[in-house]
Amino acid sequence: MATDLAALGEVALIRRLTEGFPLAEDVVQGVGDDCAVLDVDGPEVVLLSADSLVEGVHFDARLSPMPHIGFKAISAAVSDIYAMNGRPTVATVSCSVSSRYTVEHLDELYQGIRAACDYYGLSLVGGDTTGSLRDLFLSVTVLGTALRESVVYRTGAQSGDVLCLSADVGAAYAGLLLLQREQHVLVANPDAEVQLDGYPHALGRQLRPVPSREVVSAWAAAGVQPTALIDVSDGLASELHHLARASQVGFRVVQAELPIHDETHAIAQLMNLPVSTLALYGGEDYVLLYTLAQPDFNRFQDSPFCHPIGFVTDTAGAVRLFQPDGSEADIAAGWFDHFNTKPTNR
Amino acid sequence: MATDLAALGEVALIRRLTEGFPLAEDVVQGVGDDCAVLDVDGPEVVLLSADSLVEGVHFDARLSPMPHIGFKAISAAVSDIYAMNGRPTVATVSCSVSSRYTVEHLDELYQGIRAACDYYGLSLVGGDTTGSLRDLFLSVTVLGTALRESVVYRTGAQSGDVLCLSADVGAAYAGLLLLQREQHVLVANPDAEVQLDGYPHALGRQLRPVPSREVVSAWAAAGVQPTALIDVSDGLASELHHLARASQVGFRVVQAELPIHDETHAIAQLMNLPVSTLALYGGEDYVLLYTLAQPDFNRFQDSPFCHPIGFVTDTAGAVRLFQPDGSEADIAAGWFDHFNTKPTNR
Repeated sequence: MATDLAALGEVALIRRLTEGFPLAEDVVQGVGDDCAVLDVDGPEVVLLSADSLVEGVHFDARLSPMPHIGFKAISAAVSDIYAMNGRPTVATVSCSVSSRYTVEHLDELYQGIRAACDYYGLSLVGGDTTGSLRDLFLSVTVLGTALRESVVYRTGAQSGDVLCLSADVGAAYAGLLLLQREQHVLVANPDAEVQLDGYPHALGRQLRPVPSREVVSAWAAAGVQPTALIDVSDGLASELHHLARASQVGFRVVQAELPIHDETHAIAQLMNLPVSTLALYGGEDYVLLYTLAQPDFNRFQDSPFCHPIGFVTDTAGAVRLFQPDGSEADIAAGWFDHFNTKPTNR
Repeated sequence: MATDLAALGEVALIRRLTEGFPLAEDVVQGVGDDCAVLDVDGPEVVLLSADSLVEGVHFDARLSPMPHIGFKAISAAVSDIYAMNGRPTVATVSCSVSSRYTVEHLDELYQGIRAACDYYGLSLVGGDTTGSLRDLFLSVTVLGTALRESVVYRTGAQSGDVLCLSADVGAAYAGLLLLQREQHVLVANPDAEVQLDGYPHALGRQLRPVPSREVVSAWAAAGVQPTALIDVSDGLASELHHLARASQVGFRVVQAELPIHDETHAIAQLMNLPVSTLALYGGEDYVLLYTLAQPDFNRFQDSPFCHPIGFVTDTAGAVRLFQPDGSEADIAAGWFDHFNTKPTNR
């Protein structure tokens, strides 16, 4: 059953999509007035993050199920809150859809949004649903809180700190390569079956990334606080350069230490690409890249969220890779560029 | 000179567009890290509003100058903060653009965003710039603050209260009708000169609406506080029904008292439409509709932002119009529907 969007109307649509979302105690007013109203405790600061997902640029509606698109939109914004060592609290979702989409499509989209809100403990407090001529656009704002002294910026890395990842990198881009291959098959033969079995980790990372809500609490539980912190959304190489520039330090990255999933290795081989390209230049993994002072590293090194990949040096801006053959190279500031939809060097 | 977006890249683009925006004192961190970080004072609550502008739905890039589009996107979100009796403080802008647009187009767009931030006293603290396949999408989030007891919801109107508008209605829709007429001329003859002289108020309302930042402070200065409050974005009829439903009251609106600008009268005549249709069903005026208890009305009635248009009744949901000929009619809950781009009844 497909319901025309125009038949339902904007107000009824928003009510239908947002009804029954649970609200946390500090939400004085959620959906239903002109603004959301939020209570904020005294010693805390407010963290604010905005992210967009655009059809044809960030996702292909033929390959990505609607609930996944909703989940991913929330996850991308939540990842930025974690990347400040904060706790996400409320979200707003602005959605622009063309008449190609039905109310049931939006129901599915909001199933994913609701699942993400449940998972991350977010209250959905507002948003906007409008028409669009052709494509689907999702724009998510997430607010979070943190004690002022707990906020971790990109700027605090110190020479001698240990450089760590919270999980493996390159898998999301590996998943994208798989999907793009299937897309080419579909263009040639629209009735072809999509063959994606055997790569649940890579496809999950690409279609429904789940920034780990446990990392921030694991740091707190261990009594450690990163000196610098960023999420890996545009690719590890790009984020290394962002951190290096912000902290005015350099990095020595040991290639053999990069956490890379077996599926990512397999897909790299399948595509005839060096796996280090996927790990360094693949975007959208939404894991955390952080630096720990040596005593904090000693306390945290046994955590499943601690994958040391190198060290901080005092050579500002120098991001160097130690390769398995013993040679050394610069890591170029390439990044995952949505304007080109593939990794580029600049 | 036109610069290709892909040639500049996302990070450089965001830096170029957001550099030098002034930040207020309570912004701990603006653009440049994963999130914005904001300080919030103890007795205040945070207001959160999100709004989108979509090319081809909310604006026509051939008729609307880029700076106006930027200004309007901020204004629409600011209007929602005023509609809670709050003070807007920070904004984020998410922007999705296709390669049809150049860096210079975005410079112009951000000129408008900057002008709006200056005008409303907003700090631009973040956002997102991504590609899009075809159309331009702008999504704005504005945060504001208010003392908790000063927030005015839609729910507080009481029988006997005076119903008021902060300014004239219908002008934005009159401006849209003018622009649509010119668009038809342009479709027939792309080289035609656009003839829009003589209607600065109506065109300004449509292209560059300026929610008055003075209304909220005028109430405070007079020592009054509305009992219920909403901004007129979807059209007066629609907002009356929203307020009536939220407050469980009715309204008696006196048609002869509706503040309507001379240009709106002239355009209605030109288009052969009853001017009351424009005033009741035209959207996007971004003026405030509010109710005042009688003693507060007595204190505020001489303000330029006080246009009484009727009374609150205790007949829940009944929104009645007193027409100049002495007859009475229901005001249908029609509204300005962006899915249909013209006022509709439902």
